[in-house]
Amino acid sequence: MSAAPAWPPAPPGHPFGPHTLPYGSFRAEGAEGRRACVAIGDLVLDLTAATAALLPERAPLFADGTLDGLLGAGPAVWAEVRAALTRWLTDARHRPAVEPLLRPAADVTLTLPFTVADYVDFYASEHHATNLGRLFRPDGDPLTPNWKHLPIGYHGRSGTVVVSGTPVARPAGQRRTAGGDLAFGPSERLDIEAEVGFVVGTPSVPGRPVPLADAGRHLFGVCLVNDWSARDIQAWEYVPLGPFLGKAFATSVSPWVVPLAALGHARVAPPPRDPRPLPYLDDTGGEPWGFDIELTVTLNGHTLSRPPFAAMYWTAAQQLAHLTSGGARVRPGDLFASGTVSGPVPGQYGSLIELTRGGAVPLELPGGEARTFLRDGDEVVIGATAPGPDGSRIGLGSVRGRIVPPGTPTGHA
Amino acid sequence: MSAAPAWPPAPPGHPFGPHTLPYGSFRAEGAEGRRACVAIGDLVLDLTAATAALLPERAPLFADGTLDGLLGAGPAVWAEVRAALTRWLTDARHRPAVEPLLRPAADVTLTLPFTVADYVDFYASEHHATNLGRLFRPDGDPLTPNWKHLPIGYHGRSGTVVVSGTPVARPAGQRRTAGGDLAFGPSERLDIEAEVGFVVGTPSVPGRPVPLADAGRHLFGVCLVNDWSARDIQAWEYVPLGPFLGKAFATSVSPWVVPLAALGHARVAPPPRDPRPLPYLDDTGGEPWGFDIELTVTLNGHTLSRPPFAAMYWTAAQQLAHLTSGGARVRPGDLFASGTVSGPVPGQYGSLIELTRGGAVPLELPGGEARTFLRDGDEVVIGATAPGPDGSRIGLGSVRGRIVPPGTPTGHA
Repeated sequence: MSAAPAWPPAPPGHPFGPHTLPYGSFRAEGAEGRRACVAIGDLVLDLTAATAALLPERAPLFADGTLDGLLGAGPAVWAEVRAALTRWLTDARHRPAVEPLLRPAADVTLTLPFTVADYVDFYASEHHATNLGRLFRPDGDPLTPNWKHLPIGYHGRSGTVVVSGTPVARPAGQRRTAGGDLAFGPSERLDIEAEVGFVVGTPSVPGRPVPLADAGRHLFGVCLVNDWSARDIQAWEYVPLGPFLGKAFATSVSPWVVPLAALGHARVAPPPRDPRPLPYLDDTGGEPWGFDIELTVTLNGHTLSRPPFAAMYWTAAQQLAHLTSGGARVRPGDLFASGTVSGPVPGQYGSLIELTRGGAVPLELPGGEARTFLRDGDEVVIGATAPGPDGSRIGLGSVRGRIVPPGTPTGHA
Repeated sequence: MSAAPAWPPAPPGHPFGPHTLPYGSFRAEGAEGRRACVAIGDLVLDLTAATAALLPERAPLFADGTLDGLLGAGPAVWAEVRAALTRWLTDARHRPAVEPLLRPAADVTLTLPFTVADYVDFYASEHHATNLGRLFRPDGDPLTPNWKHLPIGYHGRSGTVVVSGTPVARPAGQRRTAGGDLAFGPSERLDIEAEVGFVVGTPSVPGRPVPLADAGRHLFGVCLVNDWSARDIQAWEYVPLGPFLGKAFATSVSPWVVPLAALGHARVAPPPRDPRPLPYLDDTGGEPWGFDIELTVTLNGHTLSRPPFAAMYWTAAQQLAHLTSGGARVRPGDLFASGTVSGPVPGQYGSLIELTRGGAVPLELPGGEARTFLRDGDEVVIGATAPGPDGSRIGLGSVRGRIVPPGTPTGHA
């Protein structure tokens, strides 16, 4: 490194300060294979090397360079590893041992940090579901009758989850033209969905539901998700069995998984629910599973919206309780995406279809450009922060993707 | 073994004769960990041990005791391994080396033979889709407008795919009662879906569609699938995003994957399609991807129906072409289930909801018992055979499951 950092090696106020300590995985020149890591300021700590040297009994968890081992190890180990990291990165006595294992984040290539087991995309924002309901079913009730009784979700495609920065090739597919004809070609209504993802750690037992009170034993942390959506492909294919290829060409996730242990100051009560949900989903009086995470959606550097995650109707704890209520198990690496995060006003909408009223009202970008849906070359960045201790902010990093023409090799493994 | 088998070690006419050679994975006393295997007659050959001894350059493929390595190795290796197996199990000169590696199938525990990557359930039978459409939308067109233009499918839950023999605990869930109230409790409309699954071997390149003509490079083999379905849970949850928990508590698969190389004599032209599909799905004049697989569905030993797989409208090659048409990749271990296999007449229906007209007309079982949907204790077995060389039959084995009360530990890993 060109200059020795202070200790802790993060500038005051940095979103990846010593209270964040998000986990990731990288490849770099001079490092063999993949390495698990943790971010501190603008540096990354090689966690595969650090545990081998300083916490050898936990080194096997990180030997494969991913977070898979840590996820499955359970809450006691999560706490132990985080406590060790906090010591190493805040107590200057550890500096001589730790400093050689730090490298600038700019020098490494961050990879998908864990193996995605089952990926479920929920639909947990009342504002988003209402907005889409009004667009798709203008004459009916915007919310389907089940919406306030269960957290609606569907299984997505794990094999097309990619890490932030991976280019997103515009998908081709079947769609109806404006004239009603059937066509095959590049999507003309390519959209984003700004979401928050919860990563499952500890597996559950098949056949045994996970009650709300046990969610903290299973949910490890959060990442940011852009669930790219081809609205024209989706509209044609999704009746009667739900979204398929319109949402299965790429789902981008941030490279950092922020452990829930870092988000204690961000916990807030979720909005009131009416009607009160069935007992297995009724979180009244329990630990709050809302999170005051503020998202920012930018297109080519211009801020489009600031979706508030605190407004989500259904929590990840409820999603876990619902998912396991019928006997399904969860596994380490299961990913629950929240569904598009949208607040009550347009400046808080998390998708272009909402921001442009179904493509009817183009957004005006600086420089006079207009946008309904995404054009080739557009770059979308979704970032987020949340309250930390003493008025600080915890960073969640960002998820970034640029649209490239159909058929462009995107290089994801 | 109690008696030395003849060579080849399968009785003439056995469905697992030397032309079948299906692949699986087992655990057994006296064998360390899991072992890849191949079935011959009523025996299994330990393929992990056999390749280590007789084909060491391919032994790494089977070292983990699963088929994962073989699946990803591609068609040239598939052909090489099958040719070696054929030599070992038909040429008596190999008997001294091979015989010690055989053990009775009855002495081993067959496990899930490969790691399920993404699981997609299609909806490829026109008869089934029409029957369900009539039940669910009695006043409308039984097929949705997209049905004949694309192979409709949705992503299922990989983590609840279980091997044949695993007990199936009746799921609980939200449902509407007959009086229209919301209830939570054990499903009262637990059904089967008799399906054929295609297992992907060679991965595809992200962003690069797999044309129909290349399907044989990627599709490795077939298994049998029972996609257990809780119709009451499904009916309440599935609008607007498709089936979720009503089909995510257990999906049973047969323990044997029959390679497509064994099914050459079963290939038949699929039914004529009207309208002709878009060019990327138009298989006119190409290699036929229909298969004359005859299924048998039994409930407590009584045959309910004989669904003909040859009647399926969409083929696995078309499903692969469609799935990759927008840029999604496939990975080794991806599983395409066909959707319920139903023929045109009731004796060929592959689900109870069709056989009982939505539960309105109970089936009468021998002994005078009546059935609409499944009761606790019921055992369902789906078996299948297909034409082999010289008038023989290739066996696909069977997928078996017994319904146990909600919350019963089912022991799947």
